Amino acid sequence: MSGTIRFYFDFASPYGYFAKFLVDDLGAKFGREVEWRPIMIGSAFKASGNRPLVDQPLKGAYSRHDWDRMARRMAVAFRLPEGFPSAALAPSRAYWWLEGQDKALAKSYAHAVYHAYFAESRPISDLAVAAEIGASLGVDPEALSAAVQDPVWKQRLKDETDAAIALGVFGSPFFMVDGEGFWGVDRLAMVEDWLRQGGW
Amino acid sequence: MSGTIRFYFDFASPYGYFAKFLVDDLGAKFGREVEWRPIMIGSAFKASGNRPLVDQPLKGAYSRHDWDRMARRMAVAFRLPEGFPSAALAPSRAYWWLEGQDKALAKSYAHAVYHAYFAESRPISDLAVAAEIGASLGVDPEALSAAVQDPVWKQRLKDETDAAIALGVFGSPFFMVDGEGFWGVDRLAMVEDWLRQGGW
Repeated sequence: MSGTIRFYFDFASPYGYFAKFLVDDLGAKFGREVEWRPIMIGSAFKASGNRPLVDQPLKGAYSRHDWDRMARRMAVAFRLPEGFPSAALAPSRAYWWLEGQDKALAKSYAHAVYHAYFAESRPISDLAVAAEIGASLGVDPEALSAAVQDPVWKQRLKDETDAAIALGVFGSPFFMVDGEGFWGVDRLAMVEDWLRQGGW
Repeated sequence: MSGTIRFYFDFASPYGYFAKFLVDDLGAKFGREVEWRPIMIGSAFKASGNRPLVDQPLKGAYSRHDWDRMARRMAVAFRLPEGFPSAALAPSRAYWWLEGQDKALAKSYAHAVYHAYFAESRPISDLAVAAEIGASLGVDPEALSAAVQDPVWKQRLKDETDAAIALGVFGSPFFMVDGEGFWGVDRLAMVEDWLRQGGW
């Protein structure tokens, strides 16, 4: 029996957005469940001394160009939202609340949040928007709003983030397979090799 | 007629070392000449606010682990040399001096320098070692040593580095194809797609 693929991401990560189109298919191909694990990448940046790509000279311009061509190559919608990057606390807490009830629903919610942010430029950090996205999937918006403001789910997101950092996660997306970490959507080909060959 | 593939790298870059095994085959596959262009990545780090991977929390540990598994996956020798990373001024200047005389010889020299550093842990920053590596290819060690200390070749390496940064190069390896930049050995699959499809 083989273990899961852990997909760590931040909802404000363009490369996480690109990975979300690919990771479940990869899991299905090798009979591995994929756990979606949103974290606050800003905390990982503090731990690693990193900062958002768009704030970095040279790398910022490269990334903006790269996101656009990556979207063209994958034939998916992409537009950098105003005020990018946002701290995606509301939808991340909502995700973990949903995940405790219904993993498939939580995954659908994550897809919808990513779509709202990078295809529709909606301000996903707003609690009202995070709740509206849930409502579109049949989730009670008042219950979702209450969960986002509940110390239990605030703490859960912190704990998930801290646990990820403790495992060595420092970027988004980041994949953990059989205890091996793989950073970046570019690494999915290597993850696939790993799954096929059972490591090297 | 199609343009060249520019392969920017630093001799002290493990990911540049892995790329050197792959990039010429990729060029040959698409009938594109590959220009090898060593630069001083430390200058690009200054421009971009970056620093060596091994000095970064989390990313440093990840990279060390990643280099070892990448070497296993590619079945090539790899050992992190003592005192890594070294500023590879001597072999980089020697490369540009050789390149002006014989591009094929310069490329052989670059292969030999990378091999000396990452397969044999030799201190390539030492002028004597840089000259010995040249001598193994039939290059007069005294002429090579003189070139490394000649202001003309010192300036040439600076100029090449500045020109690369002006084009947006901030890491090693970095590939330029048809005016498009691609950062990292992981991106060779995307470069291949680009060459096959003529862009997106």
